Amino acid sequence: MKDRKLLMIPGPIEFTPDVLQAMGMPTTSHVAPNFIEVFGQALERLRQVFLCPSGQPFIIAGSGTLAMDIAAANLIEPGDKALVVNTGYFSNRFATILERYGAAVTEVHAAAIGDAPGPEEVETILKKNRYKLMTITHVDTSTAVAADVKALAALGREYGALVVVDGVCSVAGEEMRQEEWGVDLALTASQKAIGVPPGLALVVAGPRAMDAFRKRRATVGNYYADWTNWLPIMEAYEARQPSYFGTPPVNLIWALNVSLGQILEEGMHARFVRHRRLSEAFKAVVSALGMKQVPLSDDKTATTLTASYYPDGVDSTLLGHIRDAGVIVAGGLHPAIRDRYFRVGHMGAVSVSDILATIGAIEKGLAQVGYNFEAGVGLAAAQAVLT
Amino acid sequence: MKDRKLLMIPGPIEFTPDVLQAMGMPTTSHVAPNFIEVFGQALERLRQVFLCPSGQPFIIAGSGTLAMDIAAANLIEPGDKALVVNTGYFSNRFATILERYGAAVTEVHAAAIGDAPGPEEVETILKKNRYKLMTITHVDTSTAVAADVKALAALGREYGALVVVDGVCSVAGEEMRQEEWGVDLALTASQKAIGVPPGLALVVAGPRAMDAFRKRRATVGNYYADWTNWLPIMEAYEARQPSYFGTPPVNLIWALNVSLGQILEEGMHARFVRHRRLSEAFKAVVSALGMKQVPLSDDKTATTLTASYYPDGVDSTLLGHIRDAGVIVAGGLHPAIRDRYFRVGHMGAVSVSDILATIGAIEKGLAQVGYNFEAGVGLAAAQAVLT
Repeated sequence: MKDRKLLMIPGPIEFTPDVLQAMGMPTTSHVAPNFIEVFGQALERLRQVFLCPSGQPFIIAGSGTLAMDIAAANLIEPGDKALVVNTGYFSNRFATILERYGAAVTEVHAAAIGDAPGPEEVETILKKNRYKLMTITHVDTSTAVAADVKALAALGREYGALVVVDGVCSVAGEEMRQEEWGVDLALTASQKAIGVPPGLALVVAGPRAMDAFRKRRATVGNYYADWTNWLPIMEAYEARQPSYFGTPPVNLIWALNVSLGQILEEGMHARFVRHRRLSEAFKAVVSALGMKQVPLSDDKTATTLTASYYPDGVDSTLLGHIRDAGVIVAGGLHPAIRDRYFRVGHMGAVSVSDILATIGAIEKGLAQVGYNFEAGVGLAAAQAVLT
Repeated sequence: MKDRKLLMIPGPIEFTPDVLQAMGMPTTSHVAPNFIEVFGQALERLRQVFLCPSGQPFIIAGSGTLAMDIAAANLIEPGDKALVVNTGYFSNRFATILERYGAAVTEVHAAAIGDAPGPEEVETILKKNRYKLMTITHVDTSTAVAADVKALAALGREYGALVVVDGVCSVAGEEMRQEEWGVDLALTASQKAIGVPPGLALVVAGPRAMDAFRKRRATVGNYYADWTNWLPIMEAYEARQPSYFGTPPVNLIWALNVSLGQILEEGMHARFVRHRRLSEAFKAVVSALGMKQVPLSDDKTATTLTASYYPDGVDSTLLGHIRDAGVIVAGGLHPAIRDRYFRVGHMGAVSVSDILATIGAIEKGLAQVGYNFEAGVGLAAAQAVLT
């Protein structure tokens, strides 16, 4: 596998050998006793990884967008007011999804690309109207902008809104303490910091979210996403009982249970610290190489990925040279600046050697496009943080 | 792996080593050139396996129920009339899903469990009202009842209804010639005769279905299922262009492409013939052992699985003995007769040796519960068909 390239995009990420082995295992029946145990464990562990002891976990075949759809379809009834704290591409998507289920959506936009609405701006809006629900994109994968979930969630609570966090690019990497912070629903996808190949939508709903669901009058508009179908299944598997609604994605759930076990073995605190440290190292590289991050300030920057503008005179042809040097990083995604920046994911099982290999490849690429810098300056900057 | 049990349920089934290897491969980026090629190929091959050269294929992370949801959400507008040819558990589900999106549903029920409504009964209903859409469950996984898709689809066409076939337990096993038979949309899930671990919803929509979608006035009620989001993605990957809506389940799609390649290498005609032959062998065993199938007649019996009542004096404890003998078969699913019958899946990569091993285990189980029969009579009956 020596010619395999290192995958350093913000998902799918590099997965551990044990996770990949679980993916390739002969599939068991979805009601086999050993699979029931694995599914039950995965549900319990998901609650621990989300740091939400009183939450109801859902593990369902689909993408992260399905997880967003599940949140909106089950919590929104036609006419409900919803507030979207908009930090970019995926916040726009959440607004669209909420509207699909009949919500009247208000958005608080960031003042500029790379910025995030502050708690004061959000509080101003919350004072004017009562919202049933408020969404926060923890990390906008398109720009690496991180929202202040802790402060925003406290505000949401104060003003009586259900707090929904899109944690697709954060859960199990970025610090998020669902229950302690008052987050009513958090969601993610398997291929990000959770460390499992794509194909699972993961949701943990706290008691207030489940109450709101139970008190609905309108039928959920989306059949596949409807908790009426899935709640008995999740409860049954956690009670180690067989059950059936749709055939669960056996291999992916097996792999999920392996990865969640590895995450909890590391410990959530240690994991958050590791992600911060690797991220700081990478951010130091961006500065040392004379580049500029897309997020406007350190407190609005994710630790799971880095988004950096190309330096002057360099364009997206850089990505091909980085790839030739053995590492795959991602191009821009935000439509307004798509061709001016690139993104590097550093979450999940990512190691110091992966980080160094990536910096080495970026330096090589920059040299090949004729950018003027001192070779090794990026590696040295990282090393200074990492030692 | 010698202690691993053979999985002979109607999905998930036994998968080939190459498919499992693809599942466990290090995950590539969803926009890597080699994955784009694989996704593009899988779309082309899906069209060939469904025998629908003019169809639009969709490959989306989810279960078979999502595939049903996709069909209903995209084709039904509130107030549309839909006809469900009801052959059991999964037809009931289709009726529920159609209603969720606003359809006025009429159902033609079978006269008895194990029966399927005949073309005459369906025509009587079609004459009375004009239906926008008609659903047929090709194989009801709960009872092994097969519907006469060819005759029913012709009727649907004649009376102007879009013909939707739930082929979850049929596609790539049971004979189904989507385009030739005039089926407007066919759907399945990965873990059945398509031969890939669970986690993919697979849909092929013909030109009339796509036209009906394009002419919709109402927004699709389900965001995740909405073809507006997915059609450009499927078109892009087939044109070997990167594209993004939700992260595709990379490993599952890689495995799907491997399995579709194996299916086309066997050839669709040869595959249908092999499934019929193995099924005939298994049905001969049921008779030879003095048992009775759930389907009432040979022309209403699936070739992808066998549902058999327990013989007199035998109950579901038989299943544990069969398991102890090394083979997992499935219990009953239809609520009215759940404890009186069991099911054996024999589809996909299933071999003659799998069939013989299963019969051996069933004989052993029957002997252990004290059922009176001549040992080997089941194996001999199968062998008579297979040689």
